[in-house]
Amino acid sequence: MRALFFDVFGTLVDWRESIAREAERLLSPLGYGLDWRVFASAWRREYQPAMEEVRTGRIPFSKLDVLHHYNLERILPRFEIKDVPEQTLVELNRGWHRLDAWPDVSAGLHRLKKKFWLAPVSNGNISLMVDLARQNDFPWDAILGAEVAGDYKPKPRVYLAACEAFDLPPGECAMVAAHSSDLAAAVACGLRTAHIARPNEAGPGKGEAAPKIAVDFAASSIENLADRLGC
Amino acid sequence: MRALFFDVFGTLVDWRESIAREAERLLSPLGYGLDWRVFASAWRREYQPAMEEVRTGRIPFSKLDVLHHYNLERILPRFEIKDVPEQTLVELNRGWHRLDAWPDVSAGLHRLKKKFWLAPVSNGNISLMVDLARQNDFPWDAILGAEVAGDYKPKPRVYLAACEAFDLPPGECAMVAAHSSDLAAAVACGLRTAHIARPNEAGPGKGEAAPKIAVDFAASSIENLADRLGC
Repeated sequence: MRALFFDVFGTLVDWRESIAREAERLLSPLGYGLDWRVFASAWRREYQPAMEEVRTGRIPFSKLDVLHHYNLERILPRFEIKDVPEQTLVELNRGWHRLDAWPDVSAGLHRLKKKFWLAPVSNGNISLMVDLARQNDFPWDAILGAEVAGDYKPKPRVYLAACEAFDLPPGECAMVAAHSSDLAAAVACGLRTAHIARPNEAGPGKGEAAPKIAVDFAASSIENLADRLGC
Repeated sequence: MRALFFDVFGTLVDWRESIAREAERLLSPLGYGLDWRVFASAWRREYQPAMEEVRTGRIPFSKLDVLHHYNLERILPRFEIKDVPEQTLVELNRGWHRLDAWPDVSAGLHRLKKKFWLAPVSNGNISLMVDLARQNDFPWDAILGAEVAGDYKPKPRVYLAACEAFDLPPGECAMVAAHSSDLAAAVACGLRTAHIARPNEAGPGKGEAAPKIAVDFAASSIENLADRLGC
């Protein structure tokens, strides 16, 4: 194995607490009071359907920032939120660029980097990945993923484009993710796999504590993965 | 200005001395003795014509590693070099992944990174950029350039794709290069410009000591550019 590709939302960063925080920070001054974690989860639930529009070719490839903005406009009425200034919506949407990493991630990535090439292979766009890397000290060798491939995971093109960018056969690359569906798609492309347990990703007990498919490595954190890989 | 895009060959790394060293290391054990700097320059001279095949659409986009390999095979007969094992040719071609940086570059980039997003916008492919970054400690935020754009500089698409990847209008980005032709193409796309003097890039006195066009900044090194930009 020469390269490790990382899922980001949920695997490396805690989108739920971070988006709840951002929404509260920007919307509570407008007089709104609600369960901000429920709001974060509702926004996140629009994620797959929006990308499916791209995957099926119904709309051309659009950066995740664009899809996130449409999704935000879609959920606001459900929470009876209206007349929010456009600038506030833009700022709230930028909240996805300010997600906090789980505490094991930065140290683990720095250890892994000594032995492997590292890149995010996320559905997030390049600028979003740069912001998260700067905020959380992720030492990427390159930013790969959906925007470079022009399509969204779990389409095979995204995994294969990442291997090709690093001039590596899929068998010398591993996908690292907290979601078995992501890993299953990577396996189908010939990549190796590492599962990271994030049992509380989407709320208490709402996350994968263990992989649902056979994987090459099942780790409890990025630091634990570094231990397992001798870094 | 929020982002700086860097030309790499000649601007950040000394291709001529590095390729001369690699060629001597790999070909002199086969009994060849020649002026290795002349060999390096001959190989480099094939660079623009090979990319022009892609720019004009005569061949589909191919990574620079592929073009370098064809160019190597093209120049070998001129030096009466033959029957080199394929593995040695591959290794020699990989010499472009082992170029040494000019001494001012790593320290200058680390200073600039505190204030700007940094990416190579080179015609070199992603894996080549990663190898150079690891060898020379270039702290990129992302790897942009030809492979991400699917075309070669000075085609406008390459500069514009880099701005788009960072979600920035061209006027908030600057191209940094030792070649006025590269900067002229960037200006035509609306980018700002910084020229780095590399007067001996292609041999003593064979490089640009000063820009041939009006630029926003004319610097003597990457460290000097960091001084000028208050980093």
